[in-house]
Amino acid sequence: MTEKIVIIGGGAAGPKTAAKLRRENKNFEIDLYTQEDIISYSACGLPYYIENIIQSSETLIIRTPDDFKKQNINIHLKQRCLSINTAEQNVLIEDLISQKQYKVSYDILVLATGATPIIPNIKGINLKNIFPLRTIQDGINIKNKMLNSKKAVLLGGGYISIEVMEALVHNNIQVTLIEKNSQILNMFDSDFAQFITDYIIGKNPGQVSILTNEEIIEFVGNENNEVIKVITSSGKIIETDFVVLGTGVRPNTDFLQGSNIKLGVNNSIKVDKTMKTSKYNIYAAGDCCEKFNLATNKYTWVPMGSTANKEGRCAALNIAGNNCLFDGILNSTITRYFDLTISIIGISYKEAIELGYQPEFAIVTKKDKAGYMPNSGTLTLKLIADKNTHTIIGIQGIGDGDVNQRINTVIPAIISKTKLESFMDLDLPYAPPYSPAIDPVLNAAQIIYHKICS
Amino acid sequence: MTEKIVIIGGGAAGPKTAAKLRRENKNFEIDLYTQEDIISYSACGLPYYIENIIQSSETLIIRTPDDFKKQNINIHLKQRCLSINTAEQNVLIEDLISQKQYKVSYDILVLATGATPIIPNIKGINLKNIFPLRTIQDGINIKNKMLNSKKAVLLGGGYISIEVMEALVHNNIQVTLIEKNSQILNMFDSDFAQFITDYIIGKNPGQVSILTNEEIIEFVGNENNEVIKVITSSGKIIETDFVVLGTGVRPNTDFLQGSNIKLGVNNSIKVDKTMKTSKYNIYAAGDCCEKFNLATNKYTWVPMGSTANKEGRCAALNIAGNNCLFDGILNSTITRYFDLTISIIGISYKEAIELGYQPEFAIVTKKDKAGYMPNSGTLTLKLIADKNTHTIIGIQGIGDGDVNQRINTVIPAIISKTKLESFMDLDLPYAPPYSPAIDPVLNAAQIIYHKICS
Repeated sequence: MTEKIVIIGGGAAGPKTAAKLRRENKNFEIDLYTQEDIISYSACGLPYYIENIIQSSETLIIRTPDDFKKQNINIHLKQRCLSINTAEQNVLIEDLISQKQYKVSYDILVLATGATPIIPNIKGINLKNIFPLRTIQDGINIKNKMLNSKKAVLLGGGYISIEVMEALVHNNIQVTLIEKNSQILNMFDSDFAQFITDYIIGKNPGQVSILTNEEIIEFVGNENNEVIKVITSSGKIIETDFVVLGTGVRPNTDFLQGSNIKLGVNNSIKVDKTMKTSKYNIYAAGDCCEKFNLATNKYTWVPMGSTANKEGRCAALNIAGNNCLFDGILNSTITRYFDLTISIIGISYKEAIELGYQPEFAIVTKKDKAGYMPNSGTLTLKLIADKNTHTIIGIQGIGDGDVNQRINTVIPAIISKTKLESFMDLDLPYAPPYSPAIDPVLNAAQIIYHKICS
Repeated sequence: MTEKIVIIGGGAAGPKTAAKLRRENKNFEIDLYTQEDIISYSACGLPYYIENIIQSSETLIIRTPDDFKKQNINIHLKQRCLSINTAEQNVLIEDLISQKQYKVSYDILVLATGATPIIPNIKGINLKNIFPLRTIQDGINIKNKMLNSKKAVLLGGGYISIEVMEALVHNNIQVTLIEKNSQILNMFDSDFAQFITDYIIGKNPGQVSILTNEEIIEFVGNENNEVIKVITSSGKIIETDFVVLGTGVRPNTDFLQGSNIKLGVNNSIKVDKTMKTSKYNIYAAGDCCEKFNLATNKYTWVPMGSTANKEGRCAALNIAGNNCLFDGILNSTITRYFDLTISIIGISYKEAIELGYQPEFAIVTKKDKAGYMPNSGTLTLKLIADKNTHTIIGIQGIGDGDVNQRINTVIPAIISKTKLESFMDLDLPYAPPYSPAIDPVLNAAQIIYHKICS
């Protein structure tokens, strides 16, 4: 008998699962339903489309429904999943065009419904020109508006806002970022958040304002219901042509309310290491799922396109009868603001304190190449280790130099609990165009070791 | 009583040991003797001085004797160590200017005599304009000659020759490289050596020849005893204005013949993990020392400036009464040829076969960034794992993309024996300017795992 696989969601995890399933098994009947009118695109690339580094939004589309059709995978656009009936093994779908509802039965169901922007409950939020950034249409809306604008407000100081800020500043928009916490990029320690803030302000003096400990209490519109200013909690009135909401996302799991699918952190879907949910024939993958943090050994929820791809692959392998376990994540993130790379992996110093570690850290600022080589960049690393076990638990890195190379070195060390003693002597390859004789990340480990042991 | 520390050698390890010793202990009497007229310089930067990326050879000097004097470290230039008397605890030194000999007593001796170019025994080798490249003077000699030349021969196809070739090609010299093996860069698998060869030839068509399976049997000179051509084993006659010897180096340990200091691989000095030699109060560090290969678990000898720095630091810490262990190396190397990064870590496929592993490999060629980002580069990785244990044992990488970032990720995984199952799901940070959603190095691990397990 042909197994009927139904996949709900068309972002990263759903299409990945579908494609991998087909490679593993020619006989599965595979149907993918998505509420959007487009599938398989890189949402992470949207800020670069807005910036106009990427001219066409179509460049962000990885595979079209026709591509999937050639693989005998049926894509159903603008079809929203309303609910699941696990007893009858079917899903209730609404056709968003005809608004008719119908049931689709499955042998195996894959939930890959992603995440949805959190729209804050602020007076005037329904005015025109207040945009989230999640879908390609959101990106098109922001880009079109930007091209006829002079001023913008970004609400929230996370990665999306930093990336959109680069896009807007590059396009000569006057930008005000409003963040309710005392720092932007709240996952970073405050020292690094300050370095980043200083860089952003210094990069384009006068063009960017960053307001922390500040909230928007009202969006004010004109006679056409277009936002024209925002009023903040401290009483500031900021004129603007549009607003981008960088106020976070939440798992798109409302349709599971009342089902017997277990939910976890932030109402994300609980999965085991095979990506199976609490129901034996229902899998989940991507931003709708709970994650396990290998650095803290706690469940968490961090949406990330790279994780979605890995989880989709893992789900497909297990559905196809192979064995695959996805162990978890390290909350690894990276972005850039013009020439500045910004990255954090594992546990920050402040989080380590909260979690009850006895952390020690070292901050080093070094050239990324031999000092005498031209075109070298600078990087600042904050390496964090646990005093009791001597293991590395996290790193933060910023700079116009090659930060990645150092950040990536730490990742396997965290999961394998490599001690500082071994890490500081790692045989990283050395040549003057690539690093100083003692690599900055090793230097940081030497300093922590010295602090702990002397 | 003040301890008297005598250090022999002024390249990387000796000065590093001296400086670190002084930071650890203000009371040590520290004297460093070197046969050269300069200390503490980056020999690895010499090709970039020849190329004229670095204009002055003085840029390569890290610290001068005066810098050391300020730290109360006495530097003795042009003083060669002739022999050691371990019973009397002194060394016999020859003043290379006055040619007088004298003894210097020590409480603790550090041998950091580095390595010496191997000068092949070929007819005509003593002609003028045949240069090794080890010291700053060698670099000055080659650069001066290059500026009045049109053609050069490079003997040997190792890293030095690749780096010198970039320098010469950049300066419009016609270059012929002669290598006795069937490939250049013999540590690489033949497929990668061929990729690199093709890149070099294709980069400057007609300007570079690479002759493999070929040896020089005679250097022919003119009436001024200047080399003007070489004759090869296959009968080729190649006109040249000068020759650079990239024929390798050997540990500079001849002066230890007849002493009771134990030697190991290639007559390098045997040391334990504290950098102590077979004699309790004699340490050694840097290119004169034997190394332990953590990938193969065998002793080896690979000279490398980064290792010299780590070993010098370790020796100093132990002499100063701290505990420091240097575990070993992974034969990690990296270089570039113009835009092409070339790197190898751990064990190659051919070496794995020789060592009795059952290796499996994957080769991936991918963009280093999201496919839609402009200015992305390409990289080709060959990841090698052991079928029996599923552990990663080596990687080779080349490309104009960010190879380092991927290579470095593998290094802690090799020493901690991370299995493919964990490695392929590593939470490497993802953003479009830095990597595709599935990083190429993870993709390579997925492919090997699939080969092994299906």
